[in-house]
Amino acid sequence: MRELRKDPVLGRWVIISTDRGRRPQDFHADYDHFAGFDPQHDPFREGQEHLTPPEIYAVRAKGSEPNGPGWQVRVIPNKYPALGIEGDLNPRGYGLYDRMNGVGAHEVIIESPDPYMLLSDMPLKHLIEVFSTFRLRVEDLSRDSRFAYVLVFKNHGRDAGASLRHSHSQIIATPIVPKRVLEEMYGAQEHWKNKRRSIFVDIVDQELMMQERIVYQNEEMLAICPYASSSPFEIHILPKRQRSDFRKASAEELSALAETVQVCLRKWRGALGPMQYNFLIHTAPNDTELSGVRQYFPMLDAYYCWHLEMFPRIAQTAGFEWGTGYYINPTPPEDAADFLRGIKVEIS
Amino acid sequence: MRELRKDPVLGRWVIISTDRGRRPQDFHADYDHFAGFDPQHDPFREGQEHLTPPEIYAVRAKGSEPNGPGWQVRVIPNKYPALGIEGDLNPRGYGLYDRMNGVGAHEVIIESPDPYMLLSDMPLKHLIEVFSTFRLRVEDLSRDSRFAYVLVFKNHGRDAGASLRHSHSQIIATPIVPKRVLEEMYGAQEHWKNKRRSIFVDIVDQELMMQERIVYQNEEMLAICPYASSSPFEIHILPKRQRSDFRKASAEELSALAETVQVCLRKWRGALGPMQYNFLIHTAPNDTELSGVRQYFPMLDAYYCWHLEMFPRIAQTAGFEWGTGYYINPTPPEDAADFLRGIKVEIS
Repeated sequence: MRELRKDPVLGRWVIISTDRGRRPQDFHADYDHFAGFDPQHDPFREGQEHLTPPEIYAVRAKGSEPNGPGWQVRVIPNKYPALGIEGDLNPRGYGLYDRMNGVGAHEVIIESPDPYMLLSDMPLKHLIEVFSTFRLRVEDLSRDSRFAYVLVFKNHGRDAGASLRHSHSQIIATPIVPKRVLEEMYGAQEHWKNKRRSIFVDIVDQELMMQERIVYQNEEMLAICPYASSSPFEIHILPKRQRSDFRKASAEELSALAETVQVCLRKWRGALGPMQYNFLIHTAPNDTELSGVRQYFPMLDAYYCWHLEMFPRIAQTAGFEWGTGYYINPTPPEDAADFLRGIKVEIS
Repeated sequence: MRELRKDPVLGRWVIISTDRGRRPQDFHADYDHFAGFDPQHDPFREGQEHLTPPEIYAVRAKGSEPNGPGWQVRVIPNKYPALGIEGDLNPRGYGLYDRMNGVGAHEVIIESPDPYMLLSDMPLKHLIEVFSTFRLRVEDLSRDSRFAYVLVFKNHGRDAGASLRHSHSQIIATPIVPKRVLEEMYGAQEHWKNKRRSIFVDIVDQELMMQERIVYQNEEMLAICPYASSSPFEIHILPKRQRSDFRKASAEELSALAETVQVCLRKWRGALGPMQYNFLIHTAPNDTELSGVRQYFPMLDAYYCWHLEMFPRIAQTAGFEWGTGYYINPTPPEDAADFLRGIKVEIS
């Protein structure tokens, strides 16, 4: 099977080509996350709070002191931030070129006090705290009018870009709206102009009707292997109802999201073995002058929908992907979803 | 130093952030390309031509037979092609979604009969044959009106996407113009509309004037670490004169390109040690109805310029890059170019 498929939101083409390995066992990873790990030098574990910058926020036992033990989820500034919190953007030219100061925020969410606790193993109640912390930090950082966008993402494993083993996620607030998100916004706006409907709701409806790419669903959320998946076993989790803004996610929606992520991570592990992965949350940009939302996307709430994208790091990107912006995916998403549905997991 | 820089062609922002490692020794790779390699089972070596599909083209000694020994550069169909050569596109809908048949071409250029010969070690005369073969194959594949684009690219090393050790490059012909190339075309067209100049020529002029990011130059070619480099030690090689179409490159231009690539690969190795890398050649799309060039970019020859992009695989992309389409680069291109200029290499 060789097919070109177009992502309905991004307009990006993907090559689905099954000549090379495509079944889960062809990708089976035996990634040993804790090989060589020494928890004595783990700056993220409980009791070693002095090894990190002072905390920004924590879910804590009543009566416990900031920057001491007694926490469940802890948020700190990144010690090596990609963007710095101080100063103004000061955009300026340099001959032909454009530049501005690297102003933004870069935080780390330590997801558990236990150095050996993986996100996929966490009790659901704890996972809900993690996702509630994501929402809270995005909301708080959005108040800074210098930031046009706040991105939550997770790198699990060295090949996925993580330098520390202790389970953590990151948040970066940027003064410009990311290219990928802009592309989604333009794609969704085009659909809205033509049909007066949210393309995300149309996708949810079609996937529920076709029943070919569903991995899991509950009352609030739908997890699918997207039609134009760019990598094998990629999963997108979408709210079933039109919701532009992750900051406004309700307690029920956050619980449903955490449950869906837990199920998907456990199904992945059942299908692929222990492996490295990334996830990220796309939401509407901040409604500031800099983000351009008010001016160029005044109806954004009607047609943009926040969602979570997760993908295992089991395929290499190479010169072709870099040179084209297209992807070659050896596993049709229908096959991936079918395998994943067949993996039984417990919610706990 | 933390700075946001905008790519003048793509419009993409890059974060230059030097808090983490930035000097070449921080990236120093000790990649052993031939670890575990068994040339007995190498399908690309001279004398084992029967292990590959029949050749499409070869640079051969006079009197030698096709698919036997006596060649210098050999082009074969990829045994596991991402796109298949037979059939029509047959574009069609699937509910909300769009798809078409995976029609295209996927060839492998075996760069040398010697299993242990790396591109960086090849005599310049041989390297010129390799680049002349690239040009010839792009020209030939462009004659098929089903193909909108022909991309030449190289993956060196497993992390860069190569599954075989014997030095080789690839060519993929696609029925659609790649997203990345379209973005370059739109960016260059915008500049043309405003200034009636080629942005690529403007970049060459500014870089020659500023002298900050030049790695190497000769009569025809300029190698720079681009202003908004997305990865450390990335190099772009541009013709000094406006040339839209790689298919029309002259013998002098191909020799100058091969020389520049040789110098850059050797400077990389001097600065970073043996490492994995990718390169690719961007050229104007085929002038077919499908590519849309005639309709949307009638003046393309005046403002698009073919070029070669090369980047070592020394930094990990992670959730942030995937989620945003932006890149975090720990090495300012001025520093990278300065280090590379300091590495003396011989052209041979």
